[in-house]
Amino acid sequence: MVNYCQPMAESWENPRPEPQAAASDSYAQAGVNVGTGNEAVARYRLLLNEWRHDDQLDTIGGFAGLFRLPGDAERALAASTDGVGTKVLIAAQLGRYGGVGADLVNHCVNDILVCNATPLFFLDYLAVGKLDPGIAAEIVRGCSRACRAHDCALLGGETAEMPGLYHHEHFDLAGTIVGVVEIRALPDPSSVVAGDAIIGLPSTGLHTNGYSLARKLIPSSEWSAPFDGLTFGDALLAEHASYYRAVRAIEEVATVKAMAHITGGGLLENVPRTLPQGCKAIFEAQRWTVPPIMTELIRRGRLGIEERYRIFNMGIGYTLVVPLTDAAAAIAAAPGARVIGWIESRSPQEAQVVIHPPRDAI
Amino acid sequence: MVNYCQPMAESWENPRPEPQAAASDSYAQAGVNVGTGNEAVARYRLLLNEWRHDDQLDTIGGFAGLFRLPGDAERALAASTDGVGTKVLIAAQLGRYGGVGADLVNHCVNDILVCNATPLFFLDYLAVGKLDPGIAAEIVRGCSRACRAHDCALLGGETAEMPGLYHHEHFDLAGTIVGVVEIRALPDPSSVVAGDAIIGLPSTGLHTNGYSLARKLIPSSEWSAPFDGLTFGDALLAEHASYYRAVRAIEEVATVKAMAHITGGGLLENVPRTLPQGCKAIFEAQRWTVPPIMTELIRRGRLGIEERYRIFNMGIGYTLVVPLTDAAAAIAAAPGARVIGWIESRSPQEAQVVIHPPRDAI
Repeated sequence: MVNYCQPMAESWENPRPEPQAAASDSYAQAGVNVGTGNEAVARYRLLLNEWRHDDQLDTIGGFAGLFRLPGDAERALAASTDGVGTKVLIAAQLGRYGGVGADLVNHCVNDILVCNATPLFFLDYLAVGKLDPGIAAEIVRGCSRACRAHDCALLGGETAEMPGLYHHEHFDLAGTIVGVVEIRALPDPSSVVAGDAIIGLPSTGLHTNGYSLARKLIPSSEWSAPFDGLTFGDALLAEHASYYRAVRAIEEVATVKAMAHITGGGLLENVPRTLPQGCKAIFEAQRWTVPPIMTELIRRGRLGIEERYRIFNMGIGYTLVVPLTDAAAAIAAAPGARVIGWIESRSPQEAQVVIHPPRDAI
Repeated sequence: MVNYCQPMAESWENPRPEPQAAASDSYAQAGVNVGTGNEAVARYRLLLNEWRHDDQLDTIGGFAGLFRLPGDAERALAASTDGVGTKVLIAAQLGRYGGVGADLVNHCVNDILVCNATPLFFLDYLAVGKLDPGIAAEIVRGCSRACRAHDCALLGGETAEMPGLYHHEHFDLAGTIVGVVEIRALPDPSSVVAGDAIIGLPSTGLHTNGYSLARKLIPSSEWSAPFDGLTFGDALLAEHASYYRAVRAIEEVATVKAMAHITGGGLLENVPRTLPQGCKAIFEAQRWTVPPIMTELIRRGRLGIEERYRIFNMGIGYTLVVPLTDAAAAIAAAPGARVIGWIESRSPQEAQVVIHPPRDAI
């Protein structure tokens, strides 16, 4: 068992946009091979191009797959499978299992929310080295709690004990969510135009990304040490936020043209997934706060501007593009929501995301 | 990394029937702790009893979860999450990755077929120690092939590289299927009565169960050795059969009252999952053939009658209960289908399954 961990996760709900290679120096040093991930996704895409079901709809940014409900011209199902990544290794070592189930459900909820879907049900897959029923129940209780918060059924799951595959105290956790969306309510990213505002919703911490680097920069010996009023462990295990209620509140008062869940790849890679080619996103980073755990990681890893915005969410867990005229109403509708940038026209050779870092950038 | 592997899988699509403890001696010696699995499922059930979504329907035998389509009184979605178990360790060691994806999809297809559901889409979760894009694509190609055979969309998935969790050459594979069923077409196990016939459909081998014991009894050093015209590896990796077409063909000509997918627990534990309490199933084992790989495992492990029918499917991968008058038409409709037993009345203290072993039982 290698004690050094490099998470690389590739969601490939079809058709995922072209992967953006640009691995950061720090990530490369941490051993994460972005190239092989991209190559796998490219091969999956070839496979999917060989045959595609008639009822599959084009996804929006690849956060979830969309499937037309048979016999129902007006609605589609949205589905997404995700894992928690190596955050599970921190949970296992600290013996704190209650949060990762909620992390997973909230991650999945946000992924289908990008398509504006309402969660219907969720199923979990829990694989363990040695099954401890109390721990397993604590993990599933976390799923159950987060499901209930979204009126989403916890429909079942699979628990597999495989000590040949997992170290005794280790576990892996993945899950699948299925939601429903009115086809006419699917966001229309092609309607995004220069001058639109980008609304950001605050993250609670790393969510479920960047743990490869975080575990390298903050070794397990420090996880119980005090940090920011709590411990490093607390900060690292902060639960992935759900943006369901905030997004629904904003949709009441604003036209939402496009959304993005800021997962692996950060603002740099996730926001372009739902932008038209002729648009770029400009972010003014002084408009929001970076969680202390990220500031600490940036300091320890001496991460450059591009690195930090690609590896971490940097305090923004979810973005919405709205007409500038709706921006004020939108930020008033959801706690913590703020205008963090805007859309400009883009010529083909320009980057799709520009970040103006705060003046006091470390 | 423990090199000794004990798979224990608990599907817990709500509400699963009471788990049946009775661990076999051989399984216990192989280290599979049926007790902890049952305890985990019992705890999950408590969780699910705390809150249940209004649109969840009672499942049929716990093979899949059922969820009423919102705004559609006539249809439900059926969903199931499964893993391949430690069959993946054999695939990884032999470098034969093409089959496990199909194993997984077919397993999932059969699970929702018990509710008579037609597959709509599937999503996979692939976790690897070190991502090899060629291998990953081969695994997903297996999923794709089996999905296409069922006109089921491969809607997406997640590929995660986590060397801190998985040995470099190891991988784990799980997946979720979603299907649709007309509520009036759900099988009605309560209609099963004494005198009904049990139709069996042949398995292709171990499918995805019993690999804990199989890997103990046939060590990896023998996997390339000749066996039954091929090799042990071939026999062990034989693909999990899909019963979709056979079941649909039988339904054309017979009233199907109840079905069971013969997974972990064998005929002994899976058939009772869809039988009324007042019924028992009598099997005449001379009516079908046991695959050579199982005969070999029984011989090597000196497995008793009860053990072999609990650990392995013993040659029957799927069962259907039909009125005796429909039995002849049913077996004529699907290749390999045969009458393997019948239903009798049961008093509360009697076993739910009785197996009359063939006279030449080893």
